[in-house]
Amino acid sequence: MADPRFFSVAKPMRLAELARLSGAELADSSRGDVIVRDVAPLDAAGPDHLTFLDNRKYLDAFKTTRAGACFVRAEMAEFAPSGTAVLVSLNPYKAYALAALAFYPEPAPMPGQGPGAVVDVSASLGEGCEVGPYAVIGAHVKIGKGCRIGAGAVICEGVEIGDNCDIGARAYVTHSLIGNRVRLYPGACIGRAGFGFAIDKTGFTAVPQLGRVIVEDDVEIGANTTVDRGAGPDTIIGQGTRIDNLVQIGHNVRIGKYCVIVAQVGISGSTQVGDFTMLGGQAGVAGHLKIGAGAKVAAQSGVMRDVPDGAEVVGFPAMPMRQYFRQTNYLARMVAAKKGEKDD
Amino acid sequence: MADPRFFSVAKPMRLAELARLSGAELADSSRGDVIVRDVAPLDAAGPDHLTFLDNRKYLDAFKTTRAGACFVRAEMAEFAPSGTAVLVSLNPYKAYALAALAFYPEPAPMPGQGPGAVVDVSASLGEGCEVGPYAVIGAHVKIGKGCRIGAGAVICEGVEIGDNCDIGARAYVTHSLIGNRVRLYPGACIGRAGFGFAIDKTGFTAVPQLGRVIVEDDVEIGANTTVDRGAGPDTIIGQGTRIDNLVQIGHNVRIGKYCVIVAQVGISGSTQVGDFTMLGGQAGVAGHLKIGAGAKVAAQSGVMRDVPDGAEVVGFPAMPMRQYFRQTNYLARMVAAKKGEKDD
Amino acid sequence: MADPRFFSVAKPMRLAELARLSGAELADSSRGDVIVRDVAPLDAAGPDHLTFLDNRKYLDAFKTTRAGACFVRAEMAEFAPSGTAVLVSLNPYKAYALAALAFYPEPAPMPGQGPGAVVDVSASLGEGCEVGPYAVIGAHVKIGKGCRIGAGAVICEGVEIGDNCDIGARAYVTHSLIGNRVRLYPGACIGRAGFGFAIDKTGFTAVPQLGRVIVEDDVEIGANTTVDRGAGPDTIIGQGTRIDNLVQIGHNVRIGKYCVIVAQVGISGSTQVGDFTMLGGQAGVAGHLKIGAGAKVAAQSGVMRDVPDGAEVVGFPAMPMRQYFRQTNYLARMVAAKKGEKDD
Repeated sequence: MADPRFFSVAKPMRLAELARLSGAELADSSRGDVIVRDVAPLDAAGPDHLTFLDNRKYLDAFKTTRAGACFVRAEMAEFAPSGTAVLVSLNPYKAYALAALAFYPEPAPMPGQGPGAVVDVSASLGEGCEVGPYAVIGAHVKIGKGCRIGAGAVICEGVEIGDNCDIGARAYVTHSLIGNRVRLYPGACIGRAGFGFAIDKTGFTAVPQLGRVIVEDDVEIGANTTVDRGAGPDTIIGQGTRIDNLVQIGHNVRIGKYCVIVAQVGISGSTQVGDFTMLGGQAGVAGHLKIGAGAKVAAQSGVMRDVPDGAEVVGFPAMPMRQYFRQTNYLARMVAAKKGEKDD
Repeated sequence: MADPRFFSVAKPMRLAELARLSGAELADSSRGDVIVRDVAPLDAAGPDHLTFLDNRKYLDAFKTTRAGACFVRAEMAEFAPSGTAVLVSLNPYKAYALAALAFYPEPAPMPGQGPGAVVDVSASLGEGCEVGPYAVIGAHVKIGKGCRIGAGAVICEGVEIGDNCDIGARAYVTHSLIGNRVRLYPGACIGRAGFGFAIDKTGFTAVPQLGRVIVEDDVEIGANTTVDRGAGPDTIIGQGTRIDNLVQIGHNVRIGKYCVIVAQVGISGSTQVGDFTMLGGQAGVAGHLKIGAGAKVAAQSGVMRDVPDGAEVVGFPAMPMRQYFRQTNYLARMVAAKKGEKDD
Repeated sequence: MADPRFFSVAKPMRLAELARLSGAELADSSRGDVIVRDVAPLDAAGPDHLTFLDNRKYLDAFKTTRAGACFVRAEMAEFAPSGTAVLVSLNPYKAYALAALAFYPEPAPMPGQGPGAVVDVSASLGEGCEVGPYAVIGAHVKIGKGCRIGAGAVICEGVEIGDNCDIGARAYVTHSLIGNRVRLYPGACIGRAGFGFAIDKTGFTAVPQLGRVIVEDDVEIGANTTVDRGAGPDTIIGQGTRIDNLVQIGHNVRIGKYCVIVAQVGISGSTQVGDFTMLGGQAGVAGHLKIGAGAKVAAQSGVMRDVPDGAEVVGFPAMPMRQYFRQTNYLARMVAAKKGEKDD
């Protein structure tokens, strides 16, 4: 299904193998040798394709799918058409992700250096690294094994990067220590001096920004996103956290593990974000706050005070979801009543 | 008027010629041979200059302008000073744009490759392309005629680009098919994998993003804007649409033709935007929604549900303009009344 | 304290010298020869360290600090532990900034050109400039003394840059005149054509953007920020103004002196911002407005009308701070009362 100009399928696969690698169970074990050749959406899949049903909303599409096989939750299995082999999974979307990755594995780095790559003599690169054209790697930089450094990326003096990282084209990294399996998208800017200055009548005096950025293992940071280094303490992005495009992370910010930070979010200086927190797109968080673990901040919300663990907040200034809807509903009712009066 | 360090006027022009190319009509046809040498704003224009009046607000400036000629609507013509030749147009701003373009035509690409440009042997470029210094063009890339590829731009394997495109410096394009006369501004990032992963207790599993970005003819995409490729379906930017700087377009988004998307807008995954839609600056749209054709979303609004064709919405969550103003007015009145009571 | 991979302390310093360069006064002049070796936060500082107390909130930490010396306001001096030399200052944070800068001076540019730097024969560079690898400097560009041009930066034809500027890696500058001591962070895009076009039924007609960007002395512009050039008038960034990351400045915008514009702010075309104005993160300002001198726009606010000098506004649409809080408090009270009724 995927455009062969950009993607190539690794190989056809047996359902038994796909069940194994995705942690799913084949409902009819006699179908283990059935072969599928690709993944496809429910409505477009044919007999050669593997698909998935994650959202009840698509149950009708599932009942009539022509797919050769489908990941579903146990309670949906009975609705499968007879031609579709059922792979039972607790998390069909994750199972699909793993299967799709088997069909379309990430291309490995191609070890070597592109034209014009500049690697300082004091820098060290692990085995199997691919350095793109015109990438610039500064003095004393340490890069682990199997990394890909994109075209035109700039890795400044002293930066350390772990194994199997993917540093996007034109990314810029300075004053940072980066873990393993980290992915920076193109144009990301990590480690520049934060927005710190003393103000008086004569103008502004820059305050030297003496911290670093620490990016833990398995983090992804989106395209053209900016992460400022600490002013004294470090700016920290916790393990596994996903940061989308065009996000701003201020100096001294500490983000926990496995957070999801959607596009165009802004987090002001010195704020701490707990583990497993989600920030919706364009949300903003003021400085020096604590956002609790597992909290959810709705898109476009403006957080002006601490958020407890597990709380869901929304609006500007952000308040608990229930309170917010009470207020907006009250206002809508009052105005509707007013309008009713007028219409009489 | 324009700084000669950056702009040069092509040549003096006769009013008859300017009327012809702008679709305007010279009120006094005997002035067809009058020459003007440049464009200028109403208040700064002199006898050698062509100007325009689009907004009634500037009528006084028009009455006293020293401009040699001016584009105006028919009903304004009578207010012209005697020294100003009147060019009557239904759309004076567009007429001015066409005239200004005649004075200041876009410089054509200068065919050839700058220092260090890397073009894969399997890539094909049409006639008359200019490839800037350190641009990197990957395997099997196809680029049409008369394109300009800016310094340090990265065009990845398999990408196809039509004729007369302008790909800005340091732009990054992957997994994309791009039409004719498309303009990408510097730092734009088109076609990276979207923000797609399955979540469970063990963390996140990336879902392979197997779609593309389709950019139709005459689209412009602003500086440092990011457009993610589809997850399976494609992300599509319809013909003629203008996208400003620092905008985020999520995976699978489909934007119609001739839309205007102002700076810092964010559109979440799988949302569809109809033709001729306008999104004001910093507006956000949640995922999986339909924004109708001709709809207008006010600046900073947060759209959480479908918007019908032609509707105007505002606020967070976005609601019809009239409802929004009723609510804000109600609240202002209530508070004012309360204040009155207190002051008694 | 700072990581030696990224920072190095210039030299140990005497308190008398630090008092002199920071404009502070040593409370006990007999301690002028005491030596400190570094700066550190209040709670981490030891006898070799200089620290500061700016915020009363940290008074307890001050009372028990082990720091060798501390900048404080006069009224706090009495709480200093006996081991801590007191440096009295009206602005301890600024004094600290100046001292920290003495310990960690900005590295000077290293004159010369990196590999692959392209400097047009008609360009002129002052003494002591450092041009990074693969930077591209166009025809007739003029650059002053002691500038640093980062790796992969692109400075287009005709641009002029003053003395002692720092142009970040991969920054892009066109159609601009830039003052002295200006700092552009990586990925900033300055001077591209603004979002200007005439609209009619046949689509959009681009209006040539014939102005420039004027960046006055001592301005800083953040990473991946975009500043469009004027359409006819210039876009102007006034002296000393600090612009954070991912900000959008539209065409013809005029920003005064010593403004603070926090990350992800957007300012629409032709708006004027007075001197000493502050715009909080993610705030948006519509086009053709006047924001008065010394005004404060709260984070995420949406400014839809002029703001008087010195006013503080908040919300969407932005209104005076007091009015805004009256409205939000009223709504909260009404809803709480309603809830009370229900609970009865």
